[in-house]
Amino acid sequence: MITLASDFGSPYPAAMKGVICQRSDARIEDIAHDLPRQDVRAAAFWLTQTLPYFPPAVHCVVVDPGVGTDRAALVVRAGDHALVGPDNGVLLPAARKLADHVEVFRWSYEDPESSTFHGRDVFAPAAATIHNHGVTGLAELPRTSRTDSYVDRQFPNPTINRERARGEVLVVDDFGNAITNISGEELAAHASETVTVNGRQASVRRAYAGVEAGEPLVTVGSHGNVELAVNQGRGDEAFDVAAGDDIDLRW
Amino acid sequence: MITLASDFGSPYPAAMKGVICQRSDARIEDIAHDLPRQDVRAAAFWLTQTLPYFPPAVHCVVVDPGVGTDRAALVVRAGDHALVGPDNGVLLPAARKLADHVEVFRWSYEDPESSTFHGRDVFAPAAATIHNHGVTGLAELPRTSRTDSYVDRQFPNPTINRERARGEVLVVDDFGNAITNISGEELAAHASETVTVNGRQASVRRAYAGVEAGEPLVTVGSHGNVELAVNQGRGDEAFDVAAGDDIDLRW
Amino acid sequence: MITLASDFGSPYPAAMKGVICQRSDARIEDIAHDLPRQDVRAAAFWLTQTLPYFPPAVHCVVVDPGVGTDRAALVVRAGDHALVGPDNGVLLPAARKLADHVEVFRWSYEDPESSTFHGRDVFAPAAATIHNHGVTGLAELPRTSRTDSYVDRQFPNPTINRERARGEVLVVDDFGNAITNISGEELAAHASETVTVNGRQASVRRAYAGVEAGEPLVTVGSHGNVELAVNQGRGDEAFDVAAGDDIDLRW
Repeated sequence: MITLASDFGSPYPAAMKGVICQRSDARIEDIAHDLPRQDVRAAAFWLTQTLPYFPPAVHCVVVDPGVGTDRAALVVRAGDHALVGPDNGVLLPAARKLADHVEVFRWSYEDPESSTFHGRDVFAPAAATIHNHGVTGLAELPRTSRTDSYVDRQFPNPTINRERARGEVLVVDDFGNAITNISGEELAAHASETVTVNGRQASVRRAYAGVEAGEPLVTVGSHGNVELAVNQGRGDEAFDVAAGDDIDLRW
Repeated sequence: MITLASDFGSPYPAAMKGVICQRSDARIEDIAHDLPRQDVRAAAFWLTQTLPYFPPAVHCVVVDPGVGTDRAALVVRAGDHALVGPDNGVLLPAARKLADHVEVFRWSYEDPESSTFHGRDVFAPAAATIHNHGVTGLAELPRTSRTDSYVDRQFPNPTINRERARGEVLVVDDFGNAITNISGEELAAHASETVTVNGRQASVRRAYAGVEAGEPLVTVGSHGNVELAVNQGRGDEAFDVAAGDDIDLRW
Repeated sequence: MITLASDFGSPYPAAMKGVICQRSDARIEDIAHDLPRQDVRAAAFWLTQTLPYFPPAVHCVVVDPGVGTDRAALVVRAGDHALVGPDNGVLLPAARKLADHVEVFRWSYEDPESSTFHGRDVFAPAAATIHNHGVTGLAELPRTSRTDSYVDRQFPNPTINRERARGEVLVVDDFGNAITNISGEELAAHASETVTVNGRQASVRRAYAGVEAGEPLVTVGSHGNVELAVNQGRGDEAFDVAAGDDIDLRW
């Protein structure tokens, strides 16, 4: 199986699917093609929320502001999974959720047909090749070479004490839920009924429907992090926050 | 085959696909993941327009404003099809189009990992289990129990006489066509060249191209109902209506 | 394999998938369902950018402003590929990229269930039939008849001399890149560092990242044509152009 994730919108991913179907009979499943455009951190976050649910697969990821420059192409092996994409850190957080130990390879490629569409000309062919060859034999492929020099990426850590957590909004999802970097376990350990978020009081609830429709709440989302939400509404608007904004959460 | 329908947008459905691929080798086909958000009636309508075209399958539906409350999970058997989703009525209209007789089961589940993403933690695993076990053996599954107590849902009936039909707009589609609950057979029986819709005269035509580009028309859509449309334009704007609005159609 | 391309948005394509799954076990891959609405030229362009990457397949295309009129249904054979869709020219440019020689057939159909959804009632069943029967036997199918009378479509040619190229914007993609009908080879032959586009000077670069983020550039896109772009921004806005607009490019 090959999964595809990109910020390409439509219809460019179809060319990648064609390239893969030309070269392998892998089943293809889409992760998303509307990842926040050229936002490597947001893409890395969403991959941590989706790839770990899949059985062993080759995951082809193209969120690539540096396309056409000399940034390398990488393959990251994480157990029986392989992740293929640009060397900008987008692959690492999900790879580390897939396996305790990851191996990073550079994928060498000749100058592709286009300088603007490596998804079609570099990463899709790489994914098909790795799928056909098998993830376990990755190190033997002529285009791969082990490397310890690559762009890494970690999500920022919040600072937490008995009175408060200071973190930030990692992403806002399609529902308008503002997903923070503060873990749900911290919320559970410190808060019960209400908290204050950037000066605003809000109820703490297990589920959106724990408050009336239209009412704001603080909950632990499906990602395990603290989320600012509104039952049947948009949390980002109610709490007036966007991706990257600071969150001051007082228990 | 497992079909997926939700109002999740992107990229949450990918986690559901991963869960299914982990647990079964079912082919997955998407119905839609941009069903009108938390609008159970609209979702129920679109399922009636899509699921009946499929061969026997397990249809996993997650439009679920009550996620995380104590609302039950249901499995509805309709012939060789099974529909899995929340107990809010979203499954029943499509199930009744798939088969004359439907059986309703509660699907028992333990508290899932997340209180906000039962699509991933309850419904996708249920769909995979039912797919693997087969629809015909549904009653034998340890998690299923027959029930006669569930939320039902019917679309509202119009009132029709020799002079007029009074109904409402069920949904507006992506093209801007306003789809009413008035059947196309009634239109055919009563009207020929023109009708009056909420005081506005409009041509009755078999196809959008039966009027000039930009001109409004009343037609019978692919769903068999009266539809307010504009050739190469938006009917909802031309007729100034939205989902839920009353329609007074004079023959 | 059957590929699907339309301007239907969601969820209508699901009915087409169901129809195909009822009638064949073809693998289905989506090209796009958000092709520019009822814009036959733009759809034809995007098909030239996607279908040629696929292995032999039946490509079902529904961008069809004339649905429900007496416009014919066509099947175009291009090597081992078949393209199925309305007789409005949308199929021909991609077919000619797939094979040097193409054969055009009319596909006869009885009055379908709906006058507004031939995608479901005419084209999807046709694609399934052709898939099941095989592209090589197309001429023997009872519904096909060779024709030399069909709507053709070519993209407009630019006029080019030593000083300038006069062309137009064919489409604007999801990134905001304005894709012209001027070939990249002409740009390479005439320009080096900068050009003037509709009176505005802009850098010529191989890749988006060849200029600073937010800066405009002229590049050769993955389609091989001159593209007006902005690194991590929208070229259509920076150059103030839309699909169909004239481009005066001075080397």
